Amino acid sequence: MQVYKTPIREYRFLLEDFLKLNSSKVLTDRSLEIDDLLMIIEEASKMCEETLLPLNATGDSEGCVFEDGKVIAPKGFKEAYKVFSENGWQGIKVKEKYGGQELPYIMNMFLDEMVSSTNMSFGLYPGLTANAIDAIEKSATDELKQLYLPHLSSGKWTGTMNLTEPQCGTDLGLSKTMATPNDDGSYNITGTKIFITCGEHDLSENVVHLVLARTPNAPEGIKGISLFLVPKILPHKDGTLDSPNNVKCGSIEKKMGIKASPTCVMHYEDAKGWLVGDLNKGMKAMFIMMNGARLFVGIQGIGLSETAFQSSLHYAKERVQGKLPESENIADPIIVHPEIRKNLMFMKSMNDGIRGLMLKAGYAFDLIDSDQSKELTESSENLIALLTPILKSFATDKSMEITNQALQIYGGHGYITDHGMEQLVRDARITPIYEGTNGIQALDLIGRKFNIHDGLIINQYLDDINRYIDKHKDNSKMEKYIKLFEPSYNDLRDCIDFIKRTETTNSQEINSHAVDFLNIFALVAVGFTWLEFIVISLNKIENKDDDFYFSKIQLGDFYLTKVIFETQKFKNNIYSSGKLYNEFEDKFFEAGI
Amino acid sequence: MQVYKTPIREYRFLLEDFLKLNSSKVLTDRSLEIDDLLMIIEEASKMCEETLLPLNATGDSEGCVFEDGKVIAPKGFKEAYKVFSENGWQGIKVKEKYGGQELPYIMNMFLDEMVSSTNMSFGLYPGLTANAIDAIEKSATDELKQLYLPHLSSGKWTGTMNLTEPQCGTDLGLSKTMATPNDDGSYNITGTKIFITCGEHDLSENVVHLVLARTPNAPEGIKGISLFLVPKILPHKDGTLDSPNNVKCGSIEKKMGIKASPTCVMHYEDAKGWLVGDLNKGMKAMFIMMNGARLFVGIQGIGLSETAFQSSLHYAKERVQGKLPESENIADPIIVHPEIRKNLMFMKSMNDGIRGLMLKAGYAFDLIDSDQSKELTESSENLIALLTPILKSFATDKSMEITNQALQIYGGHGYITDHGMEQLVRDARITPIYEGTNGIQALDLIGRKFNIHDGLIINQYLDDINRYIDKHKDNSKMEKYIKLFEPSYNDLRDCIDFIKRTETTNSQEINSHAVDFLNIFALVAVGFTWLEFIVISLNKIENKDDDFYFSKIQLGDFYLTKVIFETQKFKNNIYSSGKLYNEFEDKFFEAGI
Repeated sequence: MQVYKTPIREYRFLLEDFLKLNSSKVLTDRSLEIDDLLMIIEEASKMCEETLLPLNATGDSEGCVFEDGKVIAPKGFKEAYKVFSENGWQGIKVKEKYGGQELPYIMNMFLDEMVSSTNMSFGLYPGLTANAIDAIEKSATDELKQLYLPHLSSGKWTGTMNLTEPQCGTDLGLSKTMATPNDDGSYNITGTKIFITCGEHDLSENVVHLVLARTPNAPEGIKGISLFLVPKILPHKDGTLDSPNNVKCGSIEKKMGIKASPTCVMHYEDAKGWLVGDLNKGMKAMFIMMNGARLFVGIQGIGLSETAFQSSLHYAKERVQGKLPESENIADPIIVHPEIRKNLMFMKSMNDGIRGLMLKAGYAFDLIDSDQSKELTESSENLIALLTPILKSFATDKSMEITNQALQIYGGHGYITDHGMEQLVRDARITPIYEGTNGIQALDLIGRKFNIHDGLIINQYLDDINRYIDKHKDNSKMEKYIKLFEPSYNDLRDCIDFIKRTETTNSQEINSHAVDFLNIFALVAVGFTWLEFIVISLNKIENKDDDFYFSKIQLGDFYLTKVIFETQKFKNNIYSSGKLYNEFEDKFFEAGI
Repeated sequence: MQVYKTPIREYRFLLEDFLKLNSSKVLTDRSLEIDDLLMIIEEASKMCEETLLPLNATGDSEGCVFEDGKVIAPKGFKEAYKVFSENGWQGIKVKEKYGGQELPYIMNMFLDEMVSSTNMSFGLYPGLTANAIDAIEKSATDELKQLYLPHLSSGKWTGTMNLTEPQCGTDLGLSKTMATPNDDGSYNITGTKIFITCGEHDLSENVVHLVLARTPNAPEGIKGISLFLVPKILPHKDGTLDSPNNVKCGSIEKKMGIKASPTCVMHYEDAKGWLVGDLNKGMKAMFIMMNGARLFVGIQGIGLSETAFQSSLHYAKERVQGKLPESENIADPIIVHPEIRKNLMFMKSMNDGIRGLMLKAGYAFDLIDSDQSKELTESSENLIALLTPILKSFATDKSMEITNQALQIYGGHGYITDHGMEQLVRDARITPIYEGTNGIQALDLIGRKFNIHDGLIINQYLDDINRYIDKHKDNSKMEKYIKLFEPSYNDLRDCIDFIKRTETTNSQEINSHAVDFLNIFALVAVGFTWLEFIVISLNKIENKDDDFYFSKIQLGDFYLTKVIFETQKFKNNIYSSGKLYNEFEDKFFEAGI
């Protein structure tokens, strides 16, 4: 079994020292203090460690069973889901008026991380429901909200997102599912959707599908797509269940990982549905909730990486093999070997840094919600827009790297199923794909985000960094770390200028740089987070909890010395242009075969 | 199903242009020409594409079945193995006097690659047999050779290597299996071995185990280990089968991939065995065949990478999604998108370059075997010693990267089982682990290989590169490529000097650089291979097969512009020392939890 304890000391650091939450309107408006948040985290932690973690391996080996259109989740999942929903976790950030707890957004992030660390497959059931709640809350009519949100927020019903079709994945404009209007304002939905996470299962009494479809005579492509709410069982107006809708699960996929979560083919045949948001504005309704959904995937990456780190740390201290020259043991624990230590330190410096950056993005949601100045709201929106593609991609790419490093530390014992390491690798492998592949995230950053208001959201972030460096550059203890940071920061700025100088009509060339640019930005943004951690920790190391802050400084030193340097590689790729592959003839790929 | 055609044009290029084999004693001694080799390759290719490839997915989904100590291979494997062995493929490089075909070593490499491309799990049965043949041929008594080699070389019997025990993986000195001498010169072997590939199965009538064990009063640790031959069924002196030995398969592992190949727990209880090689020199006997075994794992990496490349190329040309601004299609094949092209070109430039380097190492075996000058024999031995850890590590690390890139090109369709991409990723994941983890390979390079004869084997390789650059630096067409190569080559030389300056007593610091050093060396060695390919191709582009050579030049340009540059990152890691992680306190890893 995987080894995991909630990193509560780390969470406290982020709440107290990093976000400095005690003086924040986000808490005072709710009459909450950090200790209250930590108590709630402890509660969630217990559920995750005691209920979800033991079901992670069994859920993977049993998988979901499909029988006559029904899906049966692995043993124990139904009971675990009961615990999860009855304790109100589904509604953690939902407004009180819909039965939610209306806690800060960042609390939802901690919960999602703990759940992903202990049972990512389980987390997809409530995770997709949370996405559906978001979409309904932000775009549906009051009538739909009143009818659906309380049951979704209590976890009595679950939700799904239906985008993909066999011929249409990334390119949603190719969607063929049709929605024909009825006289009563509802629509009849017909079509087949694939890759529908938790599209059918036995954990909740109803499933609420959000489905992208095209109305008759709608414009072609992406501009003719609308969003519809289609329940598995049609409810009465009082929320009790009426009769089944014409929605059927045709099959579930056999797949690499997340096996305890069913990935469904869904058939809609004149299924009754209701419009969510405006006609032909389905993509807008989707995009409003997309930032949260994408950050959720990034958090899954962090969650898996944390468990990979803790498990391989545990193994490295326990497994004896080989010895140091000066040792008197027959063999030493493998944590003494440099390569093992290097990988463990890489994992921890990545996890802590990415989590810090993730919390910054999450806290921006809370600042927007807490009704502060127009300026703060706008800058928070900009930060979310910028960091979402970066965090989704980088956290998930690193989760692949880190789960694989953990497996490698276990050696052959990681390749067999017993320790759960190979499951982490398999589960992690979906995260760079779903909710928009990481390639698409990179195009979003270099295309849309780069150009919004003539580069405003990027400039705002760079200004933050500049101000921070100006503020701390005279601090003699910080000099070393700022010097380590600056070459990579300059790489980022050079690449921004380089891309600006590229003709905007040359989209092939600009798009060639997308992934490299995202990686540079991510390395620098996580590096900036480490600068912030180091400043905090330097101020703290006189206090009693010195180990924690000492470790932070050394981890930051490691990141800024060993990791961030990779920006050079990505800069080289950008500067050497995409011509080499864009102009390589297609038939040349076959040469040799 | 995966998509694969044997890259025969590429193989011809390697035989004709790269190794320039037609004038080689290796062929003339055997009265062979390149066309003969290509005909044999075509035969092997047919078997792989028609017999092995269709069993790859079914073998993975069925896996092996363990019942009452017996292992049943997946459907069709027994029949495929019959085809394989009856056509003499097991004996491809075995001496004629033992019933083999005694073809050049490189022919065995091509065969291993084709088999690994089409069915890596299947390839492990004959692959381990080949290792056992090697060990027996090089270290056993004539009596053992006469009795065992003909049946192994015909494939009638298969072989295994028994090293690992529960408490002993990398560190074989911890082995506890005991061998007690009998009066007749045989030994009684008792102990438990784990992770034994193809330790028990129904493909052959007998299994010949090579087992590391300790004799009574042997020196402690690695110096007290001997190698024993222990057959599953004891043969009469004429090679017919007598009675079962006391060897039992206790169970098989559930594991991430290579599911059609059983990974066995083997129990020996006073099983009868015979010494192979000298007493207490088991490690020496193992190491003599280790180069070949390690290169075989590297070839598995190349094989998987080739199939990953070809499959994702096929999909990229077929799948339409998104479109170029100037396109009149509703959507274009995804191969038009820069990120897809970049990844495909990365895969191909890696595969072709690594395969070329691999062939160089393989050809060195042939030069040694063909009884040439002492100087050529020694330089060939040095080349093998140098390239083995590099190729084993780099080819397998890249196979993880490339199979994952291929999966990513398929998107969600790569994550489900249908196209076989996720199987490639799972199968590839064992290659950086077995036959010595890649971390161990790196220690072998920076420890043993670095210091042999005061750096002779490294200097010899650098001299080859220097001579080559000198020879071609005045060729105006080569200037550009040599300029691209030189910074990374200088990184390698700088790092060699840097490591030489490190106190040899500071093994922690030297070992810290092992993996980075190996990576720099590999990037440069593959880069050197590309220089050689480019020189050849520049001389050829007047001929009719221009597409092939044009593509080679552009692929080389890509590698030298985009890929080799990563040496900078590894150099930075080496120059910034291992202190940051070696001196990080163990308890600091727990800070935060």
